[in-house]
Amino acid sequence: MFVPSKAHPKEMREKIRTGEWQDPTAGCSDGYVQANLVVLPKALAYDFLLFCHRNPKPCPLLEVTDPGDAEPKTAAPSADLRTDIPRYRVYRGGKLEQEVTDLLQVWRTDLVGFLLGCSFTFDVALHRAGVPVRHLEEGKNVSMYMTNQSCHPAGDFTGPLVVSMRPIPAHLVPRAVEVTARFPLSHGAPVHVGEPETIGIADLGRPHFGDAVSIRSGEIPVFWACGVTPQAVAMHAKPEFMITHAPGHMFITDLPEEELTHSLA
Amino acid sequence: MFVPSKAHPKEMREKIRTGEWQDPTAGCSDGYVQANLVVLPKALAYDFLLFCHRNPKPCPLLEVTDPGDAEPKTAAPSADLRTDIPRYRVYRGGKLEQEVTDLLQVWRTDLVGFLLGCSFTFDVALHRAGVPVRHLEEGKNVSMYMTNQSCHPAGDFTGPLVVSMRPIPAHLVPRAVEVTARFPLSHGAPVHVGEPETIGIADLGRPHFGDAVSIRSGEIPVFWACGVTPQAVAMHAKPEFMITHAPGHMFITDLPEEELTHSLA
Repeated sequence: MFVPSKAHPKEMREKIRTGEWQDPTAGCSDGYVQANLVVLPKALAYDFLLFCHRNPKPCPLLEVTDPGDAEPKTAAPSADLRTDIPRYRVYRGGKLEQEVTDLLQVWRTDLVGFLLGCSFTFDVALHRAGVPVRHLEEGKNVSMYMTNQSCHPAGDFTGPLVVSMRPIPAHLVPRAVEVTARFPLSHGAPVHVGEPETIGIADLGRPHFGDAVSIRSGEIPVFWACGVTPQAVAMHAKPEFMITHAPGHMFITDLPEEELTHSLA
Repeated sequence: MFVPSKAHPKEMREKIRTGEWQDPTAGCSDGYVQANLVVLPKALAYDFLLFCHRNPKPCPLLEVTDPGDAEPKTAAPSADLRTDIPRYRVYRGGKLEQEVTDLLQVWRTDLVGFLLGCSFTFDVALHRAGVPVRHLEEGKNVSMYMTNQSCHPAGDFTGPLVVSMRPIPAHLVPRAVEVTARFPLSHGAPVHVGEPETIGIADLGRPHFGDAVSIRSGEIPVFWACGVTPQAVAMHAKPEFMITHAPGHMFITDLPEEELTHSLA
């Protein structure tokens, strides 16, 4: 049974910064937005920003930091993107070089941080609305799949849409659409309902990322645009330098989830 | 009385391209989205794109073209931003240099076109919902005011929020909010209702841009973020080169207005 924790984001980030919390952040700080992190050199930032603009469902941009500045002034004033995530991945030339627990040794003055909405927000909203969230029930990571749908390219950033899948009882599919559509900055409404073959998914039992989950009789596979998309696309562009959060180890913002129901301004 | 025209956007753009239509575009191609244009050199495009992301209410980005490419592939495939707007303004060093009816002589391979949603979409929606739109009734331009509210800066782009004002009968204010909130890419819900002094507007009868309109007894001034904001901010940054549409002479897209109720992807 999934029980979210109530600790305030500031408290959680403090625990993360000091090394007291090194685990995945799912279920932490109930009611607050968690975010994916992508860090790129300024030279690549325009194309990545444009990619996010052109593909808002997989890449819902919460905030972009100024070059060299690790403080996300809107999402979490006084936080530090270099220390406040439990685990990071550092890539050079598109290859994973190391996993680290802070970025103090690798940070550069030309680095731009992109915070993107993640599906934790709507998973909790679905759960609260009485829609079963199978991967939470089964204590697994969500099932994710590469599709045959291309994102809109921007410069070197190009690649397929990655989707997450949740099996939903047929009578709750409309409710699942309604609940998630309220959160456009957390991937919003699904991109596809049923018929996985149409979007190039041959076997739901063999996800490309995450874990397989049980699909019960009377349940429809429902697909949402997934935050793995921008990471996969960025990696594919083989940037000379890139940092992301480690899977499941997200940045916990100060934004109440209700903030994601409208434009942040 | 305001009566929108039914001509298809392709037909209108053809008339504009050949010079047959040289007038403002308010009320043209009823049901289709019209857009503000800002054209900047690639060197300034990142900061402007980031400014739009950080200030989505005044700067709802519909599309960003690739450098040198004048075709807005999403908003109006096969259209040409250099010829399909009735009148343009060309600025150098932040100063208006000339007004032209096409950009064929001044276009450069490093130019990036930004199309931004405009309030025509929600003016028509308000009218259709039975909310009076005074400037349309009086055949005037909407009243616009500089406020004391700062936009979130990005690089050299910084400045105050500009708002448009519509006087709304008190009992229709909620309806006006509901109707416009449906169109986040057309400035969305108002930013302020009543109390103009609070946002630095001393005299509603003396707008900084556009025309003054009648405010009747029992009407509340309602303020929306305005598309003049990004133009004013861009001009203030004194870019070496910039092009905009001439006021009221917009780009007519192929996007049905209903498209603006959700993310374009």
